[in-house]
Amino acid sequence: MTDGPILLTPGPLTTAIETRRAMLRDWGSRDPAFIALTAELRDRLLRVAKGEGTHAAVPLQGSGTFIVEAAIATLVAPGDKLLVLVNGAYGERMVTIARRLGRAVEALRWAEDRSVEPARVAAALRADPAITHVALVHCETTTGILNPLEAVAAAVAEAGRALLLDAMSSFGALPLDLSATPVTAVLASSNKCLEGVPGLGFALVEPAALERARGASPSLSLDLHAQWRGFEADGQWRFTPPVQVVAALVEALRLLEAEGGPEARHARYRDNFDTLLAGMQRLGFALFLDERVQAPIIATFHLPPARGLAFRALYDALAARGFLIYPGKLTQAETFRIGCIGALDRRDFARLLEAVEGSLRVLEAA
Amino acid sequence: MTDGPILLTPGPLTTAIETRRAMLRDWGSRDPAFIALTAELRDRLLRVAKGEGTHAAVPLQGSGTFIVEAAIATLVAPGDKLLVLVNGAYGERMVTIARRLGRAVEALRWAEDRSVEPARVAAALRADPAITHVALVHCETTTGILNPLEAVAAAVAEAGRALLLDAMSSFGALPLDLSATPVTAVLASSNKCLEGVPGLGFALVEPAALERARGASPSLSLDLHAQWRGFEADGQWRFTPPVQVVAALVEALRLLEAEGGPEARHARYRDNFDTLLAGMQRLGFALFLDERVQAPIIATFHLPPARGLAFRALYDALAARGFLIYPGKLTQAETFRIGCIGALDRRDFARLLEAVEGSLRVLEAA
Repeated sequence: MTDGPILLTPGPLTTAIETRRAMLRDWGSRDPAFIALTAELRDRLLRVAKGEGTHAAVPLQGSGTFIVEAAIATLVAPGDKLLVLVNGAYGERMVTIARRLGRAVEALRWAEDRSVEPARVAAALRADPAITHVALVHCETTTGILNPLEAVAAAVAEAGRALLLDAMSSFGALPLDLSATPVTAVLASSNKCLEGVPGLGFALVEPAALERARGASPSLSLDLHAQWRGFEADGQWRFTPPVQVVAALVEALRLLEAEGGPEARHARYRDNFDTLLAGMQRLGFALFLDERVQAPIIATFHLPPARGLAFRALYDALAARGFLIYPGKLTQAETFRIGCIGALDRRDFARLLEAVEGSLRVLEAA
Repeated sequence: MTDGPILLTPGPLTTAIETRRAMLRDWGSRDPAFIALTAELRDRLLRVAKGEGTHAAVPLQGSGTFIVEAAIATLVAPGDKLLVLVNGAYGERMVTIARRLGRAVEALRWAEDRSVEPARVAAALRADPAITHVALVHCETTTGILNPLEAVAAAVAEAGRALLLDAMSSFGALPLDLSATPVTAVLASSNKCLEGVPGLGFALVEPAALERARGASPSLSLDLHAQWRGFEADGQWRFTPPVQVVAALVEALRLLEAEGGPEARHARYRDNFDTLLAGMQRLGFALFLDERVQAPIIATFHLPPARGLAFRALYDALAARGFLIYPGKLTQAETFRIGCIGALDRRDFARLLEAVEGSLRVLEAA
């Protein structure tokens, strides 16, 4: 069996072979066995974020962008107004989504290397009482920057507004406690820190927010209220689910529990990141972000122009050694990214560093 | 390895083990190897329908409903008007989708056991010059009825309107020749007659129709124009693709070619259907549809009230024997459905018939 390369990407990423093996079976999507699997999925997703008592899990077919769009289309009603806190491409994308849906939207922006500032959020909410919803990206995949969830959530709750949290790159690893932190809806996907395969997004939403949202979405497919009612009615998906992707995610969630939950996963990713950072610095690469705002999820490194290294050449050299890295997504600097997430540990990063060193030797001699 | 039950459903269905094994590998979604896989996918999809010279293949994450919605949202612009030809639940769903999107839409309806009549379509188009698009379901999964594609396509083309074809349950098996039949957009999914796993839909669209549709969709995710431009620009997906589902579909398309293409697949399904029908009739079950309008895709049978058989009891008895059948979707009659599609041949149906016979013996003795 071909395992393929080691993925050092923000997802799709390297998954455990047990997770992939869970896809070897066919499932009837309306069969009791699959209904039970869907129930396990929804329960486990809530437990990851301690949301059992307060939220409902609503999985949705498609990529992460689909669940973000579904949440905005469903929860931000016509007449509501969304404030998006932007310090990267995924915040920017939420602005685009809301605009295309014809929803009232405004952005509060920071540079890509600066965290969102809760005090500025509080001031913006005081200044504009029309704002009903605030959207925050927990960890911006653009750079790997961590935004201060608890302080922003407190500011939004104090102002009596609803918080939509894009937890795409953080869910399952970075701390998130819905029993303590006020968040109306958390949005994430199968293929990042949960270490499942791509094809599925999900929202953890306060049922009261869903109740209010009946008929609000202009889209039949991207309607979180209807999707939720479907699950609650008979445990089934409204439309054909990606059964193998669901089975893989349930297996990945079992593996997360066996590992010790998000805390243990966070520690492993931290160890991956520390190994990576020390090695890359030794090889002369500087981290783009200040370490104080860096999450151990994905690291952005400068591509030093003085060394004459092109991303493509470095990518190809590493790919030939079995490692796939990721291009940068910044306009302001020549960078590349290395993911610290996936079914990988410090030994994989030690091997990666050897491959980087070997690649540099060849490329810089050329 | 657990293969699970034999699925006699309209999809997700029984797939070949080679197709499922193709999911054992991780793929970097922006790696050249995956870009090549995506290109192979798009080429093969076109070739199945002889659309290489006239159409562009645009795969999209999500279920079949997502691609149908994306096509309506993108191709039927505000100011256009859609006429949906309805003789089942999937035609009805297109009406719902268009209404929610705020598009002008009208339905022409037939009973669920009657095929769409091309003459009525032609008359409706003469009567209402505002209609710009017509939507037809090739094979209605509700009953398994076949609609007369060629004659409807000719009537629509003659009237100078665009045809959107929901080929969900027919693509890859029933005849479809885009070099001869005028169809603006064909919509289908990975997990029916192509025998892939669910998680992916696709459209084969005339590029001129896509060109006109820039910015028409209110949805960022369900925007076929932007999705198409993305593929054309760098061969990549705009948003994270379900890489394993893509790999499975490419493998399934290779298997379709190896089998002899849609014609050979059609013959196998016909053989499955004939085996099933003869056996079920012998066991006293009547086909819901007139055989002349029945496609060899999914068969709807009456649940004879006189025999006191409940669907649930029959389902459970067959499930215990390793076969999953499908509930009916009709309001007018007590029925159930048995799919003839998937990686199955007449021997599987012979075994199914034994299982039905055994189940009936137990249930009718009770």
